Amino acid sequence: MSGTATNDLPVNEMGLVVVGAAGRMGQALIRAIHTIPGARVAGAIERPGSPHLGKDAGELAGIGTIGVAIGDDPLPAFAKADGVLDFTSPTATVEFAGYAAQARIAHVIGTTGCSADDNAKIAAAARHATIVKSGNMSLGVNLLAVLVEQAARALDADDFDIEILEMHHRHKVDAPSGTALLLGEAAAIGRGIDLDGNSVRSRDGHTGMRKAGSIGFATLRGGSVVGDHSVVLAGTGERITLAHHAEDRAIFARGAVKAALWARGRKPGLYSMRDVLGLA
Amino acid sequence: MSGTATNDLPVNEMGLVVVGAAGRMGQALIRAIHTIPGARVAGAIERPGSPHLGKDAGELAGIGTIGVAIGDDPLPAFAKADGVLDFTSPTATVEFAGYAAQARIAHVIGTTGCSADDNAKIAAAARHATIVKSGNMSLGVNLLAVLVEQAARALDADDFDIEILEMHHRHKVDAPSGTALLLGEAAAIGRGIDLDGNSVRSRDGHTGMRKAGSIGFATLRGGSVVGDHSVVLAGTGERITLAHHAEDRAIFARGAVKAALWARGRKPGLYSMRDVLGLA
Amino acid sequence: MSGTATNDLPVNEMGLVVVGAAGRMGQALIRAIHTIPGARVAGAIERPGSPHLGKDAGELAGIGTIGVAIGDDPLPAFAKADGVLDFTSPTATVEFAGYAAQARIAHVIGTTGCSADDNAKIAAAARHATIVKSGNMSLGVNLLAVLVEQAARALDADDFDIEILEMHHRHKVDAPSGTALLLGEAAAIGRGIDLDGNSVRSRDGHTGMRKAGSIGFATLRGGSVVGDHSVVLAGTGERITLAHHAEDRAIFARGAVKAALWARGRKPGLYSMRDVLGLA
Amino acid sequence: MSGTATNDLPVNEMGLVVVGAAGRMGQALIRAIHTIPGARVAGAIERPGSPHLGKDAGELAGIGTIGVAIGDDPLPAFAKADGVLDFTSPTATVEFAGYAAQARIAHVIGTTGCSADDNAKIAAAARHATIVKSGNMSLGVNLLAVLVEQAARALDADDFDIEILEMHHRHKVDAPSGTALLLGEAAAIGRGIDLDGNSVRSRDGHTGMRKAGSIGFATLRGGSVVGDHSVVLAGTGERITLAHHAEDRAIFARGAVKAALWARGRKPGLYSMRDVLGLA
Repeated sequence: MSGTATNDLPVNEMGLVVVGAAGRMGQALIRAIHTIPGARVAGAIERPGSPHLGKDAGELAGIGTIGVAIGDDPLPAFAKADGVLDFTSPTATVEFAGYAAQARIAHVIGTTGCSADDNAKIAAAARHATIVKSGNMSLGVNLLAVLVEQAARALDADDFDIEILEMHHRHKVDAPSGTALLLGEAAAIGRGIDLDGNSVRSRDGHTGMRKAGSIGFATLRGGSVVGDHSVVLAGTGERITLAHHAEDRAIFARGAVKAALWARGRKPGLYSMRDVLGLA
Repeated sequence: MSGTATNDLPVNEMGLVVVGAAGRMGQALIRAIHTIPGARVAGAIERPGSPHLGKDAGELAGIGTIGVAIGDDPLPAFAKADGVLDFTSPTATVEFAGYAAQARIAHVIGTTGCSADDNAKIAAAARHATIVKSGNMSLGVNLLAVLVEQAARALDADDFDIEILEMHHRHKVDAPSGTALLLGEAAAIGRGIDLDGNSVRSRDGHTGMRKAGSIGFATLRGGSVVGDHSVVLAGTGERITLAHHAEDRAIFARGAVKAALWARGRKPGLYSMRDVLGLA
Repeated sequence: MSGTATNDLPVNEMGLVVVGAAGRMGQALIRAIHTIPGARVAGAIERPGSPHLGKDAGELAGIGTIGVAIGDDPLPAFAKADGVLDFTSPTATVEFAGYAAQARIAHVIGTTGCSADDNAKIAAAARHATIVKSGNMSLGVNLLAVLVEQAARALDADDFDIEILEMHHRHKVDAPSGTALLLGEAAAIGRGIDLDGNSVRSRDGHTGMRKAGSIGFATLRGGSVVGDHSVVLAGTGERITLAHHAEDRAIFARGAVKAALWARGRKPGLYSMRDVLGLA
Repeated sequence: MSGTATNDLPVNEMGLVVVGAAGRMGQALIRAIHTIPGARVAGAIERPGSPHLGKDAGELAGIGTIGVAIGDDPLPAFAKADGVLDFTSPTATVEFAGYAAQARIAHVIGTTGCSADDNAKIAAAARHATIVKSGNMSLGVNLLAVLVEQAARALDADDFDIEILEMHHRHKVDAPSGTALLLGEAAAIGRGIDLDGNSVRSRDGHTGMRKAGSIGFATLRGGSVVGDHSVVLAGTGERITLAHHAEDRAIFARGAVKAALWARGRKPGLYSMRDVLGLA
């Protein structure tokens, strides 16, 4: 499959189809594939009726002509590719999972909001397709969550207090961030506790002493910060800080491409970013 | 007076009396004087009836015998000294200010909770005594407050958002810390706004976008952290962070000794730590 | 001048000419003007023979058509504008300074490498033009340098050690960065010492104890870091950290636009970014 | 054994003997045992001829009388105890390992500088004693090393650059710190490379671009910093930072006590702090 060599690329590059190719995330995926060695854009799909059909996917993404026109028929595109990158909608993703299983290619799913029913259908498709699915495709955030879980497990709750700090740009309208909660969840799993019942979401005025075993959250907002997260484990006389700093939203697209490269040639199944990191 | 040279110290060392010498802060002051070149313990005063009267002030503070017994009569002690360090109570401080004015020596006041009336009496004493008074005697925190005020003044509120983060040990029962509020006050002065009307003290759930010109606070608690404070000025594409990290509560005692050394020989008046830093 | 209102913009917006408009920095300036309220692109100049002459400056910069064609004749462009933004070459800058003086408009100069002779000519032009010149146009870095100088002056060299840390991307080929040296220079001025004679540029192996009064540098390289700088003032028991974090190279362009807005209507003279910040 | 209940302590507390009890580390161990629930000082040993023999171990350590006199005969002390804490010398440690094996109690060894021969003898003793041995007894540093190794393994060397930063007080005479090298070693193991052949120990002047796969070190010195270490993994668009901050040298003593509590009742063998953390 990887040998179709449109664009005169080496035969061993992984050919990737981007679905939702004209959207913000789709364009980021096109750019990410373009910069990562070992991958190439093999197809670009939009929904029927999109005003972008027929346009060059690279030109739309701002990287110049790449010779791949945006089309609306996934099947022939999947047939000539090694994998598909998909940050679309639950309904579309379930459909694409079926096509990817038919074509026996890798399917990387960053789509959020899937119902239990959607997930069951995706799991069924994973009997034939190699699927990597995650709500956050950043390699760094996923790695951090694994490390936080381990640290929380290794250090006694009576000795080390866990605090989670995040900062985002001034336009963000909710707090704490989804990633902060994901890290809190990892800490709670490590501690064997329920996050909801043990979170301290804000502190103001007379708070009393910190309750052992609780997980604190604090939020900063300002400027154009893409996303900073720190998990602090504070003990008597020492502190461990595990932090992630995002410079650029493109890390989600890059992580998806990395997941596809990892998935290539792997046996069918439903994988997570922890598998991609070798830490499952 | 500094030439009395008890303890065979060089004649030009500044002789300092510690009032409240048996208390936690008094002991810290004795230790700080002991480690800072140019200063020596010239006297140690406690209230009449204290069980520590007659004990060696150095031994009580854990630095070994220094040949200065704790007494209860400030006047003769002040008469032989160059300055007095005072973290006691408002009533005692007002009294000591009178004695220091009589003895024409420097009076460093770290006492908190003074009423307007107390402050008026202290100001009156400052016609004859060189008084340095501050609610926070740390050189670093005072410097940081000056820098925060300048930064807040220099950078437009529409362009740079101000956020204040602090972390303290798990036993602290209120939030944000007094120092965080002091830094917020400095930022508000720099911006020419009222802190109370422009503070955001916590964020949780749907907060909406950040309001331009507001000053945000966030609080972390855990372990044995003595006190960390950061002021972030976050603009489009860049961020300035001005931070203070306290390792040790002894910095307040050290700052008081530094203030005394600065005050020596200066003309009478009421000074602040900003004067000591040369930034008033 | 600002009332020409090409593009139907409000009459009081400041009209800015970008010289070197097709270069990387020129394009960044076009984009920065576009996003900052109160400024508009009034002209775009390239050298005669540039392949970009006649193109729309906004389209080239990736923000869509703005109705300003790139031309090669500065004089008529300057005549209709309120200011000029200039990150070109010393020779060109000296020439533009003359034209700006003639047109009596503001001239913001980010050009580096000017000789003493060039600077003399620029100073001469500043008798008639309002010139802001700086080797680093970032508001944040310039503010940080002022704060570092003050902190270094306020804190005794015997008590507080100064260390400067920087991190840049993996492609940077020299160390420490120019900005780290600029901050070191600010610290040295605050301390009243010579930077070259007091720098410690690396530490490895048996270094001996730190020499009081020295200024240490440390360098990290990795990833795509745009530029992080921290100045640490470390004393006994406390530490102050003054840091700048750049997310985006566009901050230099934004700073230049801010400098132009500040310069508008100000009396002729040669100013620095410290003047723009109100901290000179 | 734990039931001897000298000092009227609960029968289930772990009775610990401190060897080298009058030294700086020995005193820190006495204090650490005193503050950690579940442990008590069961004995205090110094070498024959020590001027401290007969003194109360608690008084010497500054925590007041604890009713344990410093003696010079380990055997009867070990016989009545559950474990021994040992930061002495290789020769003494080998001897103590034999006694601990005889008494079938836990032996926590923080002694450094052991030869291969010493280590062989310690391993032999571990057939009968439960021994925990580590060159660094801090829970936090050992945990950090495990996390660094995993992160280095999970993230491709072509994508993520590893940099190690440390800061220590102004009196430290060598660079980088032993802990920085320990973290570098963990990163190198994770990467499957040799640290010596891949370290960049300083950067100054024209360094050229960063070499992929290398591990960089940078060192700050100043003030009274006990020990800060950060490991940065910097990729395109994102960064992970794993950091440890020591407030107090007592963390090594605390870690040793925690290791003893962990070792109690475990089957004989030679363990590391990774075992104590449950991460071996």
